[in-house]
Amino acid sequence: MSVTAAAGFRAAGVAAGIKSEGRRDVALVVNDGPSAACAAVFTSNRCKANPILWSQEAIRGGSISAIVLNSGGANCYTGSFGFQTTHQTAEAVAAKLGIGAGDVLVCSTGLIGVGDQSFRDGVLRGVELTAESLSDTAEAGDEASLAIMTTDSKPKRSVREGEGYVVGAMAKGAGMLAPGLATMLVVITTDADLESAALDRALRAATRVTFDRVDSDGCMSTNDQVTLMASGASGVTPDEAAFTTVLTDVCADLARQLQQDAEGASHDVTITTIGAATEEDALDASRAVARSNLFKAAIFGNDPNWGRVLAAVGTTDAEFDPQALDVTINGVMVCRAGTPHESAELVDLTPRDTSVLIDLHAGVSEATILTNDLTHDYVHENSAYSS
Amino acid sequence: MSVTAAAGFRAAGVAAGIKSEGRRDVALVVNDGPSAACAAVFTSNRCKANPILWSQEAIRGGSISAIVLNSGGANCYTGSFGFQTTHQTAEAVAAKLGIGAGDVLVCSTGLIGVGDQSFRDGVLRGVELTAESLSDTAEAGDEASLAIMTTDSKPKRSVREGEGYVVGAMAKGAGMLAPGLATMLVVITTDADLESAALDRALRAATRVTFDRVDSDGCMSTNDQVTLMASGASGVTPDEAAFTTVLTDVCADLARQLQQDAEGASHDVTITTIGAATEEDALDASRAVARSNLFKAAIFGNDPNWGRVLAAVGTTDAEFDPQALDVTINGVMVCRAGTPHESAELVDLTPRDTSVLIDLHAGVSEATILTNDLTHDYVHENSAYSS
Repeated sequence: MSVTAAAGFRAAGVAAGIKSEGRRDVALVVNDGPSAACAAVFTSNRCKANPILWSQEAIRGGSISAIVLNSGGANCYTGSFGFQTTHQTAEAVAAKLGIGAGDVLVCSTGLIGVGDQSFRDGVLRGVELTAESLSDTAEAGDEASLAIMTTDSKPKRSVREGEGYVVGAMAKGAGMLAPGLATMLVVITTDADLESAALDRALRAATRVTFDRVDSDGCMSTNDQVTLMASGASGVTPDEAAFTTVLTDVCADLARQLQQDAEGASHDVTITTIGAATEEDALDASRAVARSNLFKAAIFGNDPNWGRVLAAVGTTDAEFDPQALDVTINGVMVCRAGTPHESAELVDLTPRDTSVLIDLHAGVSEATILTNDLTHDYVHENSAYSS
Repeated sequence: MSVTAAAGFRAAGVAAGIKSEGRRDVALVVNDGPSAACAAVFTSNRCKANPILWSQEAIRGGSISAIVLNSGGANCYTGSFGFQTTHQTAEAVAAKLGIGAGDVLVCSTGLIGVGDQSFRDGVLRGVELTAESLSDTAEAGDEASLAIMTTDSKPKRSVREGEGYVVGAMAKGAGMLAPGLATMLVVITTDADLESAALDRALRAATRVTFDRVDSDGCMSTNDQVTLMASGASGVTPDEAAFTTVLTDVCADLARQLQQDAEGASHDVTITTIGAATEEDALDASRAVARSNLFKAAIFGNDPNWGRVLAAVGTTDAEFDPQALDVTINGVMVCRAGTPHESAELVDLTPRDTSVLIDLHAGVSEATILTNDLTHDYVHENSAYSS
């Protein structure tokens, strides 16, 4: 159950030969309306893939009836041939569905530089196959979520019910998780009846505190896109704030699933900074720790090395007195007011869930970043990925 | 041959019991003058160790006659007891040499949070032992360079001759190499006769293009300090620009040694960005690539993954057209104008020396960052370090 949980949507996920071994690699999600409202957020990476360039233009029209996604190739830095492939993909979907190409979003994921004739053939074959097998069943939604996987070990899906409407979603992402609006491919569908402008506000509010706060390895993708489509099939127009809450819940659930499936990770690390002068300060401090390879390697080694936490916090411009900092790891306050406090030997780092709490003692704001440890498996997966 | 190469300096390096297995852990370098001119640059980390806090105050007087350094403990975040230890260390050196404590710089390196009574006893014992074995021989300089090693696999030394004067140096650093002025412990001595203000200008000019451009793992230390002491014993007052050139040469030599001994590295990666609108843009682009774990893991896997280069460049604010970028790895232009060019299979990544050249096509400025790959050994060393 994912993108077909909400009424008004059909989906499909097929194996079109882009990936080897008959794995599913093309997904199509169609909004049958009555509304074609849509919003999307895109990677803030300036080196954007062809599908991103296409989708950013297409969404300007304000209505979108279909989104087609492929794994097995990013179609990024593939030149004008690559952009033509994206264009042809949208045209092919449009022809099959009897809509305009400008009503079709395109997403790709995989290796940068992959986008040759064989890739194009695969994607277009996938369009044919998916268009012919579209269905509103739970299975169809599940198959679509399988077709967008890359190094994911499992599909990511989430469904929540609001008052008289449903929000369902699928996501892929297992590495290159870092902020910049989106950092993964996500398709969210709802049968609530909301205009595109309202969807856009809700989506930005939701991603700001969920996907933008997953920072697994500090790397930002060229292809990421989070798309929210509303069919209006429930006939219910929810209060925008209430809808935003449900949507945020879905996004938070998916963000957590992304963290838990991060490449090679052995710990899911929640880094919360409290006592900050501003939310921005709290984010900066949490993110600096999340990006410290030394800290992340220590957590892999079950070593509650709080010195590496402080060394990372010290690189930020956040407001704090260096001698007032507290650090608590898994409930043990190992550093209080800049001085060793409870024994680090009391910290149990054997559970996968790990929490680091930093108190800046400079205000009342706080923020949390979800990250992972740096492991041998991370190095292995990312040194062997493209071979 | 290191800090005793220049006339007017004595040094010693002893085993005082801070580190185990009888390894040397305390070094003392004394400037016998006639001049006591000195300059130093310090870590820009806001979480500074006690010796940094001490040395930053001491150097304000403008004259320094001795520097004492220990490995085996950072004396950082060790509370007021730790600061008293640093103060007592300077006092002990001063008493032995018949100078003021304010003429003594102190450096520590090792684990944050280590600075208890046993550490204090060890450092003070080291002061006694080094003061009694000071010598101006090459061996004494070599022993001092051994006493500051932590995870270094070898000592780092460099000596250059100017016109009528000598510059000699020792350094330690094998991880946590990132910019912020200094990023390691370095002591440089010269028998040239230059005032502290001139030394300061020369040192900042030299470190800006050498130590500040080593970025092995993006992590910044709490304890780093680069110190330059001038005895004036040669009687030669060199032209400041000529002296800066010699000094920069020494710093570049040491920076390269630091890169080559980075923890667990299997490739020394030189990342040069050319065609930038400003030097700052070139630095930002090179540094973004140097900090991409995905890129660094790919290099470890001998995978010339230029997509990860572009994805990192895309996160910067540097001026460029994303479709105009060229990437050349070890002489093979794998991406030209944002399109796959020469086959990545032509790139030979088996040599340890690796070069990445990025052309932004936006100007004439350029800058280079020295970094390393991300390896299993890096993860291993840094997950097991404090146990």
